[in-house]
Amino acid sequence: MEDKNMQSLDNSKKNKATIIVHSGDMDKIYSALIVGNGALSMGMEVSLYFTFWGLQRLKKGGLDKGPLSKMHMFGLGKMMIKKRMNKANVASLDKMITDFKELGGKILACDMTMEIMGVKPEDLRQDLIDDYCAVGTYIQEAMESSMTLFI
Amino acid sequence: MEDKNMQSLDNSKKNKATIIVHSGDMDKIYSALIVGNGALSMGMEVSLYFTFWGLQRLKKGGLDKGPLSKMHMFGLGKMMIKKRMNKANVASLDKMITDFKELGGKILACDMTMEIMGVKPEDLRQDLIDDYCAVGTYIQEAMESSMTLFI
Amino acid sequence: MEDKNMQSLDNSKKNKATIIVHSGDMDKIYSALIVGNGALSMGMEVSLYFTFWGLQRLKKGGLDKGPLSKMHMFGLGKMMIKKRMNKANVASLDKMITDFKELGGKILACDMTMEIMGVKPEDLRQDLIDDYCAVGTYIQEAMESSMTLFI
Repeated sequence: MEDKNMQSLDNSKKNKATIIVHSGDMDKIYSALIVGNGALSMGMEVSLYFTFWGLQRLKKGGLDKGPLSKMHMFGLGKMMIKKRMNKANVASLDKMITDFKELGGKILACDMTMEIMGVKPEDLRQDLIDDYCAVGTYIQEAMESSMTLFI
Repeated sequence: MEDKNMQSLDNSKKNKATIIVHSGDMDKIYSALIVGNGALSMGMEVSLYFTFWGLQRLKKGGLDKGPLSKMHMFGLGKMMIKKRMNKANVASLDKMITDFKELGGKILACDMTMEIMGVKPEDLRQDLIDDYCAVGTYIQEAMESSMTLFI
Repeated sequence: MEDKNMQSLDNSKKNKATIIVHSGDMDKIYSALIVGNGALSMGMEVSLYFTFWGLQRLKKGGLDKGPLSKMHMFGLGKMMIKKRMNKANVASLDKMITDFKELGGKILACDMTMEIMGVKPEDLRQDLIDDYCAVGTYIQEAMESSMTLFI
């Protein structure tokens, strides 16, 4: 009996990472996708829950347009950053999120943020999004996860 | 013997979330409480450890006063945000933290932050705070938790 | 057989914390080291993975130089903050990271950030750094950890 209980406890925690993407800062979106793609490559399941400013990045054209903002703080020009990123084999956000999906990652869009912002599903990259959902879905994913981050 | 050891390991991890609330940004306090209330509703235990700028929000009148700051970045006016939040059934922070307590959530105040800032317990919402404590208490809570976030 | 499997699952999760230090803000570096040192003191293993702006702080002289920046937002002058930190027994970042190492903590430097920034190992505090590595090393550490944070 005890063994059964223990096993069900073990089974409820998968080798899974669930990340809230709250920030829309480009450097943080990079971090979320670098960690996500790394975890997928190493055999984990990964869910990204896009909310608040993070969700803005899922708008059509939202991933790679706009200023590199804080990235400039490296003290480098925009061209220099791009050149060095290429040299370091860092792909564009658009390429990275496509890889994320191809590797089997799951993308969730926060419907409360959509309602407050007046964003409709058709404004978003529907090709990337697996589900439009509320915090309960996030909690369910997080409860199954051995690794949780808020970015 | 082995089984006993394993069971004690399993028992040490409750279905519990522990969140450090380091930021005082209104959008991040919202995220902390939305996640916290969601987790409580789904049967988890939840502890919020308020520190640095987060702790400022626990001052009397600190939750709903002040500018919506970054919330303006949605590109919406203050009235419009409030109207849409009402429509999306998003309560005020004051209502959300009251709900958090009624659902059984625990609120911890970082005493080191209080000492550095010269804040006394009577400056804070003592009706909400379960304990004034140091990082050791947070670590103890986190060690028992299956889900940890830094917001 | 089942017991063996379960035990190997339990063993794969150590009493360990792995923290991504993405921010270079002084208040967040403080939080990372306060949590890290607290966890080490309570018997946990701790790895800090410095990336993006966090990695800048590992440059020679990068920890305690520079403006206290956001710390000023407490509304206190620089001298007052230092005085109160002393009174609250909060050490300098340089002292805290030395303690972190002496308590057995591990420091990892993100090599992708180094490549993009054009930073060489000799620019960094090599006396503190255990390894120069990529996201795969972080994921491996995180998979073994019961506590994961992104700061």
